[in-house]
Amino acid sequence: ANKLKVHDHSGIVYDEVDPLTAPLGAYNKLVIAPGIVTGSTAPSVGRLSVGAKSPLTKGIKEANAGGRTPHKLARAGVKAMIIEDQPSDKDAWYNIIVKHNDVQIVQANEYKGMGAYELIGKLWNDNKPGIMGSGIAGQQGLAGAGIFGNNPENTDPGRYAGRGGLGAVLGSKNVIAIVTDDRDGSVIKAVDEEKFKVGARKLRDALTGHAVTGDDGGLQNYGTNVLMNIINEAGGLPTKNWTSGYYEGARKISGEATHELVDMMKEKFGDASTGEYAHACNPGCVMKCSNAVPYEADGKLHVSPLEYETSWALGANCGIDDHSAVSTMNRLCNDLGLDTIEAGNAIAVAMDGGVIPFGDTAAAIDLLKQVGKGTAMGKIIGSGALTTGNVFGVSRVAHVKGQSLPAYDPRTIKGIGVTYATNPMGGDHTAGYTIAAEILGIKGEVTDPRDLNKADLSRAFQETTAFIDSSGYCLFTAFAILDVDSGFEGMVETVGAMVGKEYELGDVTALGRDVLTKELTFNADAGLSKEHDRLPEFFYKEPIAPHNVTFDVTDEELDKVHNK
Amino acid sequence: ANKLKVHDHSGIVYDEVDPLTAPLGAYNKLVIAPGIVTGSTAPSVGRLSVGAKSPLTKGIKEANAGGRTPHKLARAGVKAMIIEDQPSDKDAWYNIIVKHNDVQIVQANEYKGMGAYELIGKLWNDNKPGIMGSGIAGQQGLAGAGIFGNNPENTDPGRYAGRGGLGAVLGSKNVIAIVTDDRDGSVIKAVDEEKFKVGARKLRDALTGHAVTGDDGGLQNYGTNVLMNIINEAGGLPTKNWTSGYYEGARKISGEATHELVDMMKEKFGDASTGEYAHACNPGCVMKCSNAVPYEADGKLHVSPLEYETSWALGANCGIDDHSAVSTMNRLCNDLGLDTIEAGNAIAVAMDGGVIPFGDTAAAIDLLKQVGKGTAMGKIIGSGALTTGNVFGVSRVAHVKGQSLPAYDPRTIKGIGVTYATNPMGGDHTAGYTIAAEILGIKGEVTDPRDLNKADLSRAFQETTAFIDSSGYCLFTAFAILDVDSGFEGMVETVGAMVGKEYELGDVTALGRDVLTKELTFNADAGLSKEHDRLPEFFYKEPIAPHNVTFDVTDEELDKVHNK
Repeated sequence: ANKLKVHDHSGIVYDEVDPLTAPLGAYNKLVIAPGIVTGSTAPSVGRLSVGAKSPLTKGIKEANAGGRTPHKLARAGVKAMIIEDQPSDKDAWYNIIVKHNDVQIVQANEYKGMGAYELIGKLWNDNKPGIMGSGIAGQQGLAGAGIFGNNPENTDPGRYAGRGGLGAVLGSKNVIAIVTDDRDGSVIKAVDEEKFKVGARKLRDALTGHAVTGDDGGLQNYGTNVLMNIINEAGGLPTKNWTSGYYEGARKISGEATHELVDMMKEKFGDASTGEYAHACNPGCVMKCSNAVPYEADGKLHVSPLEYETSWALGANCGIDDHSAVSTMNRLCNDLGLDTIEAGNAIAVAMDGGVIPFGDTAAAIDLLKQVGKGTAMGKIIGSGALTTGNVFGVSRVAHVKGQSLPAYDPRTIKGIGVTYATNPMGGDHTAGYTIAAEILGIKGEVTDPRDLNKADLSRAFQETTAFIDSSGYCLFTAFAILDVDSGFEGMVETVGAMVGKEYELGDVTALGRDVLTKELTFNADAGLSKEHDRLPEFFYKEPIAPHNVTFDVTDEELDKVHNK
Repeated sequence: ANKLKVHDHSGIVYDEVDPLTAPLGAYNKLVIAPGIVTGSTAPSVGRLSVGAKSPLTKGIKEANAGGRTPHKLARAGVKAMIIEDQPSDKDAWYNIIVKHNDVQIVQANEYKGMGAYELIGKLWNDNKPGIMGSGIAGQQGLAGAGIFGNNPENTDPGRYAGRGGLGAVLGSKNVIAIVTDDRDGSVIKAVDEEKFKVGARKLRDALTGHAVTGDDGGLQNYGTNVLMNIINEAGGLPTKNWTSGYYEGARKISGEATHELVDMMKEKFGDASTGEYAHACNPGCVMKCSNAVPYEADGKLHVSPLEYETSWALGANCGIDDHSAVSTMNRLCNDLGLDTIEAGNAIAVAMDGGVIPFGDTAAAIDLLKQVGKGTAMGKIIGSGALTTGNVFGVSRVAHVKGQSLPAYDPRTIKGIGVTYATNPMGGDHTAGYTIAAEILGIKGEVTDPRDLNKADLSRAFQETTAFIDSSGYCLFTAFAILDVDSGFEGMVETVGAMVGKEYELGDVTALGRDVLTKELTFNADAGLSKEHDRLPEFFYKEPIAPHNVTFDVTDEELDKVHNK
C-alpha cells in the first residue's frame, strides 16, 4: 500500500532516492512540498515544489506550481508529502485526501482515465479544495506527463508542475488525485513575525511598483505571452521544430492577440472569461500573470493561462498560427495531463519526421487526442520529444538530458543555452532565466545576447533561482527584485524570519548553491556526466535565420558554470 | 552525396567520429571492415566488423557477421569501407556496388521498403555476390535494426551484424544494399605465408578435434541452440520477460528439437532444407554451427540459422514454445532487418506491459508485421526493448546502456552479468562470453557460476574477444582454443604472419586491451560514465526462480574490470 510520511526538510529526494532507481518503479519517491513561506501572508508566495527522480531526464527533478493547493497544503500542516512504494494490485487506484493534520488514502478506481476538467468537477465540493492529479497521461506512465492542479478561483486544471514527467511518477504510485482541504488549518506564521511583515512589505512595494510585475504592467495585460513578439523580433523564436528563429505568424498567437480578443469579447458579450486580462495563479499574488483566453463564440473561458512557452510549443514550433487552435491544444494538454512544452516539441518532431505536415492543425489536435485514446501513436507523443525523435528516426530534437527545450533559441540568445546545458533539471528555462538579463535587461541594462561568456551569468541565475524556488516565492518576482534591491532584501528577510535565521542578500548564493550541489551530486550518481551538459549537435551545425548564427559557446565555458 | 574512403587501419570510428554526434545524422560514419585475416585460407575466418556510433547505446559499436560478403570484400581489395555524410535528398536511395578495386554508388529507389529475401533475390546474379543491407527497419531509422547479409550458399538473409541499431545507421545514409563481387580479386596472402600456413594448420587441428567445434560436435548437430536445454537446466534461461530462470517449454524450441525435425523431414521427403543439420556461415569454416530449420509441410528451408539467442528471445522470453512459430518470427525479423534479440525483448516487454498476452503467438507475429507496415506500434517495437518499456511504462527492461540483454540470466550466472555491465558494447554476451567458463568449462574445469569475483574472468574474456573479433576469426573458435593451447598459438601466429609481426600468445591481452581502451575512451566522451556500467534495478531487487537469486556482484567488482 502507499505510505505517507511528513518531513520538515528539503533535499528529500537527494537523501532518500537511489540515483539509479527505476523512475516508475517502487523505489522512486515523489515529494510534494510547499515552499518555506508558502501559506503565509507574504505576496506572490503560493508555490509548491514536486520532486522525484525523473523518467524523462533520469536525473533529479523539481517542478514548481501555483494554484489552489500550495497555500492549502501548507496551512493543513504539511511541510512535505512523500509518496513511496506501489500497490501490489496494479489495477487499484487511489486518491489522497489531505485535511488539517490528517491524511487518508481512499479507493478511487472510478476516476481512472477521466479527463482533468471532469475529474476536478467531480472532486470539487463546498470546501473548495486544492486538487492535483496524475492525469490520463500520468496514469499511462508517459514521460511527458505533468501534474495538474486547479486554478485558484475555479475548477480548471490550469496549473502544472509540468516538466520532467512527474505525472507519470505520481501515476506509477497509482494515485489519481490529491485533494487538499485546509478548513481547520491556519495561516503560516513566521518565527519572527514582526521582521517577516517588514520584509513582506518591502517586497510588495517592489512588485507593485515595477513595470513588468506591477498594476497594469506587461504581465497583467498580456500574461507571460507578452514575450511572443519580443522574442520573435530578437530572432530567437524557434519555429517549425527549431529550423528558424523568426515566425511570421507570431503576432496572431501573442499575448497581445489574447488581449485584443478579450476586448472584443467584452464589447460583444459584456464580459469575457475571467473578466480580466489576467488573474493571480495563487491567492494573494499581486503580479496576476495568468492570462485567460475566451472562446470566440460566447466569450466564456477557453483556457487559462495560455503561457508564452505553451503558445510557442503548440503554435510557432508546429507552424500553427491559429490562436483558437493553440488554445484548444492547450486545453487538451491540460485535460490529458500533458506538459505543453514536451507535447509541442513532440508534435513538432513528428512533423519534422513527416508523420504529419507542419501547420496541420487538425492533425496536430488528433495526435494529442491519441494520447487520451491510449493508442501506440498517443504513447509515442506522450513520451516526449526525444522518444518521438528516436521512434521516427528524427535527429533534430531540441533537448538536454532528454527534456525538450522551451521557447528561446540558444543560437540567438547564448546565455539561455548555457542554462539549458548545465542546469540539473535538463532542458529548462526557469532554472536560470538569463532572458531577464539578455532580452529584458536588469536595472536598465541589457547583456548582449550574442556574448559567449555566459557561465557567470547563468550560474548567478541558477543559484538565485534555487533559492527562490525553495522559498515558495514565485520566480517572476525576480523581474522586480533584480531591479529593486530593497525588494530582494525584503524577500530574503521574510525567509529568514520564517525559520528564525538572519538571512541577508549575501546569503542567497550560498543557500542556492546548497540546493544545486545536492542536485548535481544526485545527477552525477545517476550517470549524468559533463558530456550530458551539452546541446544537441544540430545547434552547433545548423545556423538559424534570421541572424545566421549557431551555438558557439565553448565546452570549457559550459563546464565553468558548475566547475566540472 | 555519399562518399567512400578506403582506410587500412582499425579504430576508424574512434579516430573520426565525434562521440557526441547524432547517431543517425550526417556526421556519424559507418565502417565495414573485414578482419585482418579474412579473405585468407585460414579456417573459420570469414567475419567482418561493422562499426559506428550506435543509436541504441549512444556509444561505440562493433557488430560482427559472417556470410558471403566478408571474404569477398577482403578479396575485392577493401580493408575498410567508410560510409559518411548523407544525401541532401532524403528520398534518394542508393546501392553500393563493390568490385575489385572499384566502388560505385548507384540509384536504387526501386528497392526501398523491399523485404530482404526479395531484395537479395533481385540483386542476385551469376557472379553470386555478397549482399548486405539496411533492411526495412533500418530504412525507417529504427534503433533495433541490424544489417543483414546473405548466407554463403544461398540468397537467404540469415547473417546479421545484428546489434546496436547499425541497420539504422546504414539506412540513415540512404543505402539499401552493398553488393560485393570479388571476381577479379584474389585470396589474401600473408606477409609471411609459410608461417601463416603453419599457424593455420595448428588452429585447424584444434578446431576439428574438439568436441564442441569439431566434426559431429555439438555445434554441427544442433547449432548454437544446443544451449537451450543446458542454460535452462542451469536455471539461467530468462523466461517471460526475465521473470523466471526456467522455462517448461524450452525443450520444444531447442537445438535438439530442430535436429529431430530435420530427421523427420529427411525420412518424409528424403531431404530437408540445406540437407544437413548445420552448415558453415562462411566458406571455409570447419565448425559449421549454422543449423537450418525446415518447414514441416514440405521440408524446405524455413529459416537458417535459428540461433540460441534468437530462439530464446522470440520463444522462451515471450512464453512461446512453438518451434515453427519461433522460426516464422525469426524469418520475419530477417526479412525486415531486425535484430532478433532486441525484437524479442521488445515484444516481451510489451507483453509485460499488457499490450498483448505472454504466449500469444499470433499477436507477437502481428507486432513484428507492424514494423513492416510502418505503423506507430511497429516503430515502437522496432526501436527496441528500452524504448518499448519507456513508451508503455514498463520498468522491467533487461538492458545495459540501452541495448537489451541476451539469453543468460546474470542472477544465475554472475560472470556474464559482469560482462553485460562493463563491456563497451552495452548488453552483449559475445563481448566477453564467460558462459564458456561458467557453464561449459575450460580444460575440463567449470568456474562456479555463483561466485561473485568475476572481474578478472570477464576482463580476460573481453580482451581475448577484442583480439579475435579484430582478427576476422569467428569467436566460436574460442571453444577450442581455450582448451587447446596449440590452436590458440596457431591463431595468433597467423595474425602476426599476415601483417608481418611476431605475435605470440602473450601479446593477445595487450592487443585486445588496445581495442578496448579506444572503445572505453569513446564511450566516456559520449557520456557513458561508470554509473552506466550497472544492471537495471530489478536484477538486484527481484529474485529469480528456480534458485531464488538476485544479482549481487558489487559495484566495486564491476568497476575493477576496467579500473574505473
